[in-house]
Amino acid sequence: MPAADPAAPAIDHFWAVIPAGGAGTRLWPLSRSSAPKFLHDLTGRGRTLLQDTHDRLAPLVGDRFVVVTGTAHREAVLGQLPQVAPERVLAEPAPRDSMAAIGLAAAVLEREDPDAVMGSFAADHVIPDPGSFAAAVRVAAGVAREDWLVTIGIEPVFPSSAFGYIHLGAPLAGHPGATEVREFVEKPSVRTATEYVATGRYRWNAGMFVVRPTVLLDLLARWHPEFAGALRTVAADPGRLDELWPGLPKIALDHAVAEPAADAGRVACVPSAFHWDDIGDFDSLAALLGSSAEQVSVLGDEALVRAVDASGLVVPSSGRVVAVIGLDDVVVVDTPDALLVTTRARAQDVKQVVEGLKADGRTDLT
Amino acid sequence: MPAADPAAPAIDHFWAVIPAGGAGTRLWPLSRSSAPKFLHDLTGRGRTLLQDTHDRLAPLVGDRFVVVTGTAHREAVLGQLPQVAPERVLAEPAPRDSMAAIGLAAAVLEREDPDAVMGSFAADHVIPDPGSFAAAVRVAAGVAREDWLVTIGIEPVFPSSAFGYIHLGAPLAGHPGATEVREFVEKPSVRTATEYVATGRYRWNAGMFVVRPTVLLDLLARWHPEFAGALRTVAADPGRLDELWPGLPKIALDHAVAEPAADAGRVACVPSAFHWDDIGDFDSLAALLGSSAEQVSVLGDEALVRAVDASGLVVPSSGRVVAVIGLDDVVVVDTPDALLVTTRARAQDVKQVVEGLKADGRTDLT
Repeated sequence: MPAADPAAPAIDHFWAVIPAGGAGTRLWPLSRSSAPKFLHDLTGRGRTLLQDTHDRLAPLVGDRFVVVTGTAHREAVLGQLPQVAPERVLAEPAPRDSMAAIGLAAAVLEREDPDAVMGSFAADHVIPDPGSFAAAVRVAAGVAREDWLVTIGIEPVFPSSAFGYIHLGAPLAGHPGATEVREFVEKPSVRTATEYVATGRYRWNAGMFVVRPTVLLDLLARWHPEFAGALRTVAADPGRLDELWPGLPKIALDHAVAEPAADAGRVACVPSAFHWDDIGDFDSLAALLGSSAEQVSVLGDEALVRAVDASGLVVPSSGRVVAVIGLDDVVVVDTPDALLVTTRARAQDVKQVVEGLKADGRTDLT
Repeated sequence: MPAADPAAPAIDHFWAVIPAGGAGTRLWPLSRSSAPKFLHDLTGRGRTLLQDTHDRLAPLVGDRFVVVTGTAHREAVLGQLPQVAPERVLAEPAPRDSMAAIGLAAAVLEREDPDAVMGSFAADHVIPDPGSFAAAVRVAAGVAREDWLVTIGIEPVFPSSAFGYIHLGAPLAGHPGATEVREFVEKPSVRTATEYVATGRYRWNAGMFVVRPTVLLDLLARWHPEFAGALRTVAADPGRLDELWPGLPKIALDHAVAEPAADAGRVACVPSAFHWDDIGDFDSLAALLGSSAEQVSVLGDEALVRAVDASGLVVPSSGRVVAVIGLDDVVVVDTPDALLVTTRARAQDVKQVVEGLKADGRTDLT
């Protein structure tokens, strides 16, 4: 892996594709359908996750961005990313999972720039060290130019059962820092994950793919020819988007292309050690913000929080004073119309509450 | 103790004095200086504690009420008690503790009704069985007419260290159900309280006093002659209230009169077994509302609360949805400008937060 070089120029013909979707249900009531996770500043540094993603990629692509988001969020995305040309913010009429979103961007780029290499990076991940990230992407782009589907594999920090894993193969000839991929494996049990981590041959699958658009679509055409055909038709004639979109399969890129392509020996990996977090729930967010056993972490205005003998995470986003007394690892998320009180250990169960609210027709809150 | 008779007429010349003071700091953010405990409906039955106190006493006194409250709360008291004549709602220019408040009412009544017997009952206590309460007051009023200072002693339910105790003496001749009082004792340790309770000769001091106004003032004059003189002067010439009030000692009736009067053999007690609660903090409130290990008690609109594997108390008084997941014995109090999250065990420490806010000049919140 080459060292990061912040002064390095953008990569020729390299395009960033940012799928900006997903409600982030487990971050309710902060994140919700009307204002999903990627539109929020979850690090407290004044930029939203979407803006952070843009900023991290800009040194690599210049102004070559394509964002794919839901119709409902296009205005918000344009507002947060004034640097991105409006015609580069594609609106999905309805969510069809990652293959449709990223495939649409690939089909558009295939026509626009025959020499394009694209890198797809979710709008709602956190990577505190953009230099190490950039170094990995540069290696990946070089490999992708030789028609590999390249994924960036994150070195596991602990045996997580919340992520899929990439099983590394042999070193890739001619590309120091890259390997072949033997297979992608689904989210394992903690026990299996522990075995994976012990081997040193598994990496977290963070859903980062670097690939030539044509390679991606041709791979898709191999297993889902009609899907690839529909995407290319829409790219050629955007007027048919509304007609063809509802018929596209709801499938993740991993299942539609990456897994079978790995079996076919077409996938490479750039194993990387930078810190990465998808902030899946408030427990992850508390960890990211450096929550300690001694005091609460505050995302927002610390002056609003009065904590006595408490630890965990407090998000005072309604402007009200929040007093927390005598609770360890607590999670308190205060918004103008809804309040969540739970623990870091139960952070996953926020989903249950959101499902209950949806079942009761409280779409105003979800 | 005679059985309760709900159809019994009011007691001749019997007056209810309701000192309506105290901020109820440990019930913050529900209770605060601008809207103290007694102005709130803490039982969820649609009447505030003040209104409940009035309703409990009305069958005993008819319209003979005197309420003593702070200048800031007089309007609110009048609004909640339209049945009480405005001239019977006395305003203290500043809080001077219970002796001044109750003594002022006594001095006013002494002039108004020479045959008066008064019963003083705090505005913010809860007594679920008004019939048993009334029966005890009727006995007490009979004893008080013979110039005793009479207190109603509550049978201890557990060895509380939060209340003072009344040490009972011999039965009072001619008054079945009444005893002499040997002494008042300050809040004991739990160990001492346990010993008290085991003897069967101690009762909780709930601060309920029944007495002829003249007897109360004459007893006060015995140990604090200037204090009694000032109160009688103000009653004779209300125009001098603002001048004399600031000079009155800040002292509780218990210390100023009841304790020395007991030593002088002038105090009687009517021991009673009705349930009584001063709702000192959110732990008491949770118990009062029947909080169980299985589910949260809600004071307010239950439809606003989404609880999963939680127990304790939730007060959703801002209109927002409150979700609580995986916390036992939790206390969540949601108001429009402040939120409290704690546990029943730490309910006492709410005081610390209020003191901190006061120290920071946040009088808007306290």
